[in-house]
Amino acid sequence: MTHAATRWHVSHRRRIEYDILSAPDLLDPGNPALLSSGRSNPGRRFVVVDEHVAQHCSAALDTYFAQHGIEARIVRFPGGEAAKTMDAWLGILHELDAFPIHRRDEPIIAIGGGVLTDVVGFVASSYRRGMPHIKVPTTLMGYVDASVGIKTGVNFNRHKNRLGSFEAPRQVLLDRAFLTTLPHRHILNGVCEIIKLAVIKDVALFEQLEQHGTDSIASCFQSDHGGRILDRAISGMLEELQPNLFENELARNVDFGHTFSYGLETHHEERLLHGEAVLLDIAVSVLIARRRGLLDAVEVERVFALIAALGITLDTGVLDTDLMWHSLLDRIEHRNGWQRVPLPDGLGHCVFVNDINPAEITASIESLIARTSRQHDPVLEC
Amino acid sequence: MTHAATRWHVSHRRRIEYDILSAPDLLDPGNPALLSSGRSNPGRRFVVVDEHVAQHCSAALDTYFAQHGIEARIVRFPGGEAAKTMDAWLGILHELDAFPIHRRDEPIIAIGGGVLTDVVGFVASSYRRGMPHIKVPTTLMGYVDASVGIKTGVNFNRHKNRLGSFEAPRQVLLDRAFLTTLPHRHILNGVCEIIKLAVIKDVALFEQLEQHGTDSIASCFQSDHGGRILDRAISGMLEELQPNLFENELARNVDFGHTFSYGLETHHEERLLHGEAVLLDIAVSVLIARRRGLLDAVEVERVFALIAALGITLDTGVLDTDLMWHSLLDRIEHRNGWQRVPLPDGLGHCVFVNDINPAEITASIESLIARTSRQHDPVLEC
Repeated sequence: MTHAATRWHVSHRRRIEYDILSAPDLLDPGNPALLSSGRSNPGRRFVVVDEHVAQHCSAALDTYFAQHGIEARIVRFPGGEAAKTMDAWLGILHELDAFPIHRRDEPIIAIGGGVLTDVVGFVASSYRRGMPHIKVPTTLMGYVDASVGIKTGVNFNRHKNRLGSFEAPRQVLLDRAFLTTLPHRHILNGVCEIIKLAVIKDVALFEQLEQHGTDSIASCFQSDHGGRILDRAISGMLEELQPNLFENELARNVDFGHTFSYGLETHHEERLLHGEAVLLDIAVSVLIARRRGLLDAVEVERVFALIAALGITLDTGVLDTDLMWHSLLDRIEHRNGWQRVPLPDGLGHCVFVNDINPAEITASIESLIARTSRQHDPVLEC
Repeated sequence: MTHAATRWHVSHRRRIEYDILSAPDLLDPGNPALLSSGRSNPGRRFVVVDEHVAQHCSAALDTYFAQHGIEARIVRFPGGEAAKTMDAWLGILHELDAFPIHRRDEPIIAIGGGVLTDVVGFVASSYRRGMPHIKVPTTLMGYVDASVGIKTGVNFNRHKNRLGSFEAPRQVLLDRAFLTTLPHRHILNGVCEIIKLAVIKDVALFEQLEQHGTDSIASCFQSDHGGRILDRAISGMLEELQPNLFENELARNVDFGHTFSYGLETHHEERLLHGEAVLLDIAVSVLIARRRGLLDAVEVERVFALIAALGITLDTGVLDTDLMWHSLLDRIEHRNGWQRVPLPDGLGHCVFVNDINPAEITASIESLIARTSRQHDPVLEC
């Protein structure tokens, strides 16, 4: 702080640190990982767990805390995008306010998918101006994307994640056994974010997906190859997030697939999962990149061949220029006045553009629909 | 980031910087201070202004923005503790969501007292995970206390500031002419926080108050002496806040007067202003310090003589051991398991204690009531 007459300058460096740790057999009472941060015996923990996960491990959770001498309040949360509401956030806050915990050494524990960890992260950041929290992702989307960074959020006024915060977790604990409880569609949902990283920044990851993606999906990423794909995806995300945790730089290559998808998933919340909307955005963006000469025909074919090989169907019926253009306009506010749309400049490389126009979106939608209808039309396939 | 097998460590230093600037004649169209951060001509600003202040300067505000080519959305806010609600916060968020502004270079402007800047600060920190904001304090409480630091908050579930965030403003702009519009009671309200700093950490400020406090209050701090008291109070606050902006250290001497006051003002929201509750807490705490031998009789007399000289009456009718003890218990959760109550150890020095008990509170309340009734009893005064 300097004080010259009537000016004071406040300057501070805030240290942000957290670990992302592999923690297999997380709910085995012999595994101390879940209580490795904060006080225990005695101690209290406020735990929010996904309803679907609770059906599989409610008894294990109760046993775990009981054996460690922890008084736990376990709140079930429905999960899914429809639950990402202000009411859900307030509901958890009321539960928390009724279960006093220490402000610093009794971290809130969030066990669930990306929606759950986003909402509970916002609870943790808002309550008493910030309580520590621990994230345990149980979906693939959470595992490779939502839990890795520090974004929290809830939907508001029909806008996705319009309210939220940047709040670092104290820890992220990874137990990929949770992924075996997921429906197949939710495995593919997370795969879409891995494809995003592969196309925009990591050709080696792209090749891993080409070679081992199908088998990894079949094993719910329990295989060695599946584990290596997950590790590489997390490392890739962190390479991007860590130097820019608070998004001081608004041109972010991890925003690839997150320009048009914003409007698509908001407007078709019942129909599209987040990753599905992202992959539609990626498909359109790849074709925009092709039209601009940023990708060659072979690269484009590799992307669509990978999507097909992984068994992912693109729901192109939702594509609409007006909706996607307005999504881009909103992103311009979010990106402070510029489009800053990441496009692949050759597979695994990124460039940012600021001059996408509606006609270009229309043309790329039409190309995509023509391409997918060819694939689905047995006459043309002959 | 380090990645050894299945552990990633994220480490980041976030830079927090802001200025607190004297900006007299802030709404004079020739003064660029209010638009010195962010884009203008063209540009947009979302402005929240205290209803009471708007009655004095609504036209000046309109003129100011019009002359600078700024499209402004000016929202009036009722102010006062009763307005510090989730509904008020949500109402402002809805207004903001209907007036698109850039995420980084069109800062939200908050013009009002501590309640307003606390609520708008929480709006700014929550919307799109954080928008910049500028604080213009118009009350003495805001000027020397609420606007100086980075705390935001709203009341929730009958607890004061139970939700909120740490969110640094981009700037704090000080124009003490606003203080001339305040009712006398609200001037005294802010003076209580200055007394807090004086007793717990700054004998020189205490002496300034003894010598020039009464005149400064009479001039609404427009005099030179008044200005020097304000400057010293802000400097003193910043000395405490800057090294501990995010309250990593929970033993804070600026929490003096903020242990029992929490319950008092929550329970008597209609009756007590924040500073009035703080001064009651200070009075009881000074007598606890006296009983413990931390202050001598002369020092105690100086404190009570100052309070009387400044024309402040203590509303001792609200004092209640049970209420104050439960307030302390809540503070223990907030201070992570320990009382950490700051007490003066000689005027201008602070010590933290962890062993206050209800009997001690009762005895000090009784001493205080006996003392004030002596002062008010003309027979005893003879």
